Amino acid sequence: MASQLTHQHLHSHFLARPRFPGSTSRLCRSRVRMSLQENAPSLAVVGVTGAVGQEFLSVLADRDFPYRSIKMLASKRSAGQNIAFQDRNYVVEELTEDSFNGVDIALFSAGGSISKEFGPLAVDRGTIVVDNSSAFRMQDGVPLVIPEVNPEAMEGIKVLRMVVSTYQAASGAGAAAMRELEQQTHEVLAGKQPTCKIFQRQYAFNLFSHNSSVLPNGYNEEEMKLIKETRKIWNYKDVKVTATCIRVPVMRAHAESVNLQFENPLNEDTARDILKNAPGVVVIDDRASNNFPTPLEVSNKDDVAVGRIRRDVSQDGNFGLDIFVCGDQIRKGAALNAVQIAEMLL
Amino acid sequence: MASQLTHQHLHSHFLARPRFPGSTSRLCRSRVRMSLQENAPSLAVVGVTGAVGQEFLSVLADRDFPYRSIKMLASKRSAGQNIAFQDRNYVVEELTEDSFNGVDIALFSAGGSISKEFGPLAVDRGTIVVDNSSAFRMQDGVPLVIPEVNPEAMEGIKVLRMVVSTYQAASGAGAAAMRELEQQTHEVLAGKQPTCKIFQRQYAFNLFSHNSSVLPNGYNEEEMKLIKETRKIWNYKDVKVTATCIRVPVMRAHAESVNLQFENPLNEDTARDILKNAPGVVVIDDRASNNFPTPLEVSNKDDVAVGRIRRDVSQDGNFGLDIFVCGDQIRKGAALNAVQIAEMLL
Repeated sequence: MASQLTHQHLHSHFLARPRFPGSTSRLCRSRVRMSLQENAPSLAVVGVTGAVGQEFLSVLADRDFPYRSIKMLASKRSAGQNIAFQDRNYVVEELTEDSFNGVDIALFSAGGSISKEFGPLAVDRGTIVVDNSSAFRMQDGVPLVIPEVNPEAMEGIKVLRMVVSTYQAASGAGAAAMRELEQQTHEVLAGKQPTCKIFQRQYAFNLFSHNSSVLPNGYNEEEMKLIKETRKIWNYKDVKVTATCIRVPVMRAHAESVNLQFENPLNEDTARDILKNAPGVVVIDDRASNNFPTPLEVSNKDDVAVGRIRRDVSQDGNFGLDIFVCGDQIRKGAALNAVQIAEMLL
Repeated sequence: MASQLTHQHLHSHFLARPRFPGSTSRLCRSRVRMSLQENAPSLAVVGVTGAVGQEFLSVLADRDFPYRSIKMLASKRSAGQNIAFQDRNYVVEELTEDSFNGVDIALFSAGGSISKEFGPLAVDRGTIVVDNSSAFRMQDGVPLVIPEVNPEAMEGIKVLRMVVSTYQAASGAGAAAMRELEQQTHEVLAGKQPTCKIFQRQYAFNLFSHNSSVLPNGYNEEEMKLIKETRKIWNYKDVKVTATCIRVPVMRAHAESVNLQFENPLNEDTARDILKNAPGVVVIDDRASNNFPTPLEVSNKDDVAVGRIRRDVSQDGNFGLDIFVCGDQIRKGAALNAVQIAEMLL
């Protein structure tokens, strides 16, 4: 396999929830069918004890991803832990520069600084890296991939402008943030002061502007990622995008309210048909029963759900649409996406 | 006083939280200074046992609103309850067509159907009605008033188009919805199935499209109220508005992500100065410390908080702004607004 640094997009605004509460420490379900195969690639999962790392294992098992060996890698703190996966027990190893010797494909989800340090080291050893962090997303020469989205998919539907407001779950900030939301909720319900460690403010029964740093232009890093990565994923640098990213007290899945302006008319029925036929998308748009996507319903699901598809009354003719989108950020937003990319590489 | 039907705008997207949990049954704080005055108007509070009704009393006390008598009115179910208000005890009376005899000003917040039935009856008896429901909001001849907002205030700042996404609290659906969110949260944390009565779906750790009916154009009633009422309040029928209204698991205050397009340039510093000097508005916009409005911080506050004020990078020059807004829907969104209108009438 070619030595190559391949990065996936943590489509940070499409995220959902595991078996809550106490979901993050779950072991992956074991399956009768084993994916262990002699001539399959050797794998490594970097950050295996995290929320996304655990989901990597779950997705690999669900998709019968073939492998001849798998290394469970994490920080020194987590080394020595036991992980049961597909009827075998593994011991978590500390991530070092020698971890990638003999590894064909490494799935990274351990934060940007780990990716920056160990990604190039892995590539030097001939490992293909599928990186979930934002470390290399905007770097020239590094593809930013959502398997279902390619520039051709956008042909004929030219978006001129997009206004996005997000409803982002705790999971985007990792397993500790999910535990903090749960703990705070217990405390607030008991009339106690909430313990604030990750976000420095009450999260339970509250919401707040995304916790990433605010840049000189007034946008935070999460919003600018959304703006820039949309252009890169669509390979369409002139699309105008603005975004407001808000953290809401939801565990696992992200949601987005999206207002779209098109170059050519696109009526809502045509848009609905396109979305119904799009891979990785499910349309939930039942006006009569007020049934639309919710974070809870997409949790642990592969598909991104789209609904509230309607002609924007603030734009002339059929040049605008409003939609509402929910997706499991751990699964589709991170783990599934990475494994799909790895499948494409096989 | 003239016989007149005066309606306020339940600025339904600006709402916040009481002393949570168990807030809705609280009695209003008593104050040393009494507002009982011989030559002051006689008042009636319709729906006094509800979340907004209780807040009416709190605001009347806080503002030393003068009155010579006050009637506590509610449905038959609540009649007979005791309410302590400004060192006196009152018994809740059943609302009937004779309730308004001798009443100068009635504050209504008991739902649209009660307003439709009893509002005109009160007016027939010479009572001035300040109605918090949506029953008469769009009726010609009935003013729709937010005391701080008047058409002159909008002069010089012509908004061409506004894209709004809301983050609406439980309180907008009344005290029972707040209790349901609390109960469901207890249940989910305990690993139980949540009890769904008001919304027919899990609300705890979830969010969903606003529960109002969806109209043939795909917008729900809440969104169309927001669109139409904005035009009426601003007295500017050509403004283009689109809205997506989402219910989030927050108790009391609403939030909104608002994208604005102006006819003339308005840079963010000027906008911030205008907002800082606007009555009823507080600017919370500290980029360095990531401190912006949250529903929790505006709860039980009179002012609407605005932050995340920034030039919209998706629009040319200074023709666009993004902002984020939070307000206490029970207090400013309903009760305070109504009492301010009553003060204007005195």
